[in-house]
Amino acid sequence: MPLFMDTHSLGDGVTMDDVAKAHAADLATQDSHGVNYLRYWVDEGEGQIFCLCEAPSADAANSVHRDAHGLVADRIFAVQEGS
Amino acid sequence: MPLFMDTHSLGDGVTMDDVAKAHAADLATQDSHGVNYLRYWVDEGEGQIFCLCEAPSADAANSVHRDAHGLVADRIFAVQEGS
Repeated sequence: MPLFMDTHSLGDGVTMDDVAKAHAADLATQDSHGVNYLRYWVDEGEGQIFCLCEAPSADAANSVHRDAHGLVADRIFAVQEGS
Repeated sequence: MPLFMDTHSLGDGVTMDDVAKAHAADLATQDSHGVNYLRYWVDEGEGQIFCLCEAPSADAANSVHRDAHGLVADRIFAVQEGS
């Protein structure tokens, strides 16, 4: 399944707690879209969030955010992973 | 050790091969800076790269890129990981 990294630049700070709640809503919503949110990274001070997911399309990935909590990504990238 | 996600927006496309070579240079350079590059994600068409690393500081992380291949990040974020 294609892999996507999305970015949210909130401008103001954000707490891990708030993002964890939004992520829990994503997990509760994703199955109906065929999406699997894998992990995320948060810079609390900068209000920057990165979400990594497997999804059939970028639209499907963003629909999960929209349905779960309304905080859609600023950008979403179709990525390949290396290590 | 602190965790950082950096972003490179190259504008033009980039190949996984080229990024893999740069990453190999990072791995060969990182020990002297006390840095551990963990994994990375690439959108070849958009020329967008995300690098995740453990480092004592953002400066140390960026110094690895500078010494290894000169392609320093556009931005670097001090992140916490969730899943």
